[in-house]
Amino acid sequence: MNIGFIGLGVMGAPMAGHLVDAGHNVVVFNRSRAKIEQLELRGAVGATSPAQVGEKADVVITVLPDSPDVDEVLFGAGGVLTALRPGSLVVDCSTIAPESARDFAARLADRDVAFVDAPVSGGEAGAVAGTLAVMMGGEKDAVRRAGEVLDATAATTVHVGPAGAGQLVKAANQMLVAGNIAMVAEAVSLLLRTGVEVDAALTVLNGGLAASKVLEVKAPKMLARDFVPGFRVDLHHKDLKIALSAAEQARIAVPLTGVITQLVQALRSAGDGGLDHGALIKALERLNGMSPDSP
Amino acid sequence: MNIGFIGLGVMGAPMAGHLVDAGHNVVVFNRSRAKIEQLELRGAVGATSPAQVGEKADVVITVLPDSPDVDEVLFGAGGVLTALRPGSLVVDCSTIAPESARDFAARLADRDVAFVDAPVSGGEAGAVAGTLAVMMGGEKDAVRRAGEVLDATAATTVHVGPAGAGQLVKAANQMLVAGNIAMVAEAVSLLLRTGVEVDAALTVLNGGLAASKVLEVKAPKMLARDFVPGFRVDLHHKDLKIALSAAEQARIAVPLTGVITQLVQALRSAGDGGLDHGALIKALERLNGMSPDSP
Repeated sequence: MNIGFIGLGVMGAPMAGHLVDAGHNVVVFNRSRAKIEQLELRGAVGATSPAQVGEKADVVITVLPDSPDVDEVLFGAGGVLTALRPGSLVVDCSTIAPESARDFAARLADRDVAFVDAPVSGGEAGAVAGTLAVMMGGEKDAVRRAGEVLDATAATTVHVGPAGAGQLVKAANQMLVAGNIAMVAEAVSLLLRTGVEVDAALTVLNGGLAASKVLEVKAPKMLARDFVPGFRVDLHHKDLKIALSAAEQARIAVPLTGVITQLVQALRSAGDGGLDHGALIKALERLNGMSPDSP
Repeated sequence: MNIGFIGLGVMGAPMAGHLVDAGHNVVVFNRSRAKIEQLELRGAVGATSPAQVGEKADVVITVLPDSPDVDEVLFGAGGVLTALRPGSLVVDCSTIAPESARDFAARLADRDVAFVDAPVSGGEAGAVAGTLAVMMGGEKDAVRRAGEVLDATAATTVHVGPAGAGQLVKAANQMLVAGNIAMVAEAVSLLLRTGVEVDAALTVLNGGLAASKVLEVKAPKMLARDFVPGFRVDLHHKDLKIALSAAEQARIAVPLTGVITQLVQALRSAGDGGLDHGALIKALERLNGMSPDSP
């Protein structure tokens, strides 16, 4: 299949690579030229503009930082839509607001182009391994087409509802991850302060109802003070703001997500926005007057 | 071995049964006589007082609702200590405050009796199946003796530190479980309000970093409005107050645990204290002006 791919960042580059490996004709575009050249070496064809991607592709995949980037790449001057044929499909794997996804879907439908919001979870490791989980929102036929393409880079592709539903599930994902990190931070801090053998404690905690992927993966990093990203605090903050905004539009208060977002903001205020999101324990330590750099 | 067992409630009765099955001589006492008779049918010997248990046992296990119950049974008139021989061991599997456990350990040490705090996780199902996780605090030799006995009713027995450490890990366990339930409640509420296919969403959420035992076990019950306990809201509230008190004594603020404890209190205020702790989603629904009985 002729696939266009725009956004060769930490997630996009390995995803595009898997599509090449799966035998597709992949045309790639990225703001920085170096990333395009790396994909060319792997067998992709480089483009000089989003329009050129649209001209050559039946399916265009975008993996970009935020809604304005997607808007610009699709609808801006020299954008994909200046050349994309009717009947084509746009699949946006960025994490953006559900309302933006619905807006893109409507504007593309006016041009007879289908749209699927398809945010992913699994992080850089999942993108490299081709084991991402993809949550897709859109019309059934478009989602089926998107799933067939994304299978090359994912372990799971799930249709979760109409346009925007993929982003809502991603928002829920980011709420759960942040909340579980915050609770692990509180529990680990209590254990560290009270002379408990924390390694032994983590073993038994992971054996029962308290078990979580975050407890398994992030607690040992909190103990080792290893906050190399991984997934950066700044990005998680962006995603939590999306979740809070989505909740407000759904007319539902989510008080814990609110408090947690403020703790994440406190981390950024203190200059830790570039660390892994497991560094949330540092916000709790600062709050308690402990030096977060020598616990 | 000659084992005394006091407290034949939902957890204690099946635990005592496993000790009988393992070939121990088990002397049991409980406030209500009917529970004693059930254990006698299974091969235990009934006692008429805690003192009589102390007289016949080398190791006494207590599984009681709260610290005052343990205090009364051990040190009260007709209590275990009126008859227990020096060199014996008391193992308390109740969930109580870490400071109470340390207090019991000190008072028993004065009588040359060893003490291990050994709260359990795994719930009634784990007690019946003999697959509890036991977190033990105390001196090494006493913990070894306690572990040998409790092996008959547990999948995991872990030594986590000195006296009180078992209760601290149990407190951390209850914080994590409550926090994960609260986050699942917020995430599920958002998805329910926005037309997402929640079953499909749960599949993909459980495949990534958002995965947790609570998401796996409690989210489907929230969707089915199945709040039959399980573990009751009232008991979880008691345990969260223990955690908050332990954190205060450790001079650490745990803001999320604080907010969550208040949401759990709100559930009790509304008359839902007897439901399973997964019913926390009802507190969030009430907060948002939704009828929690017809979502």
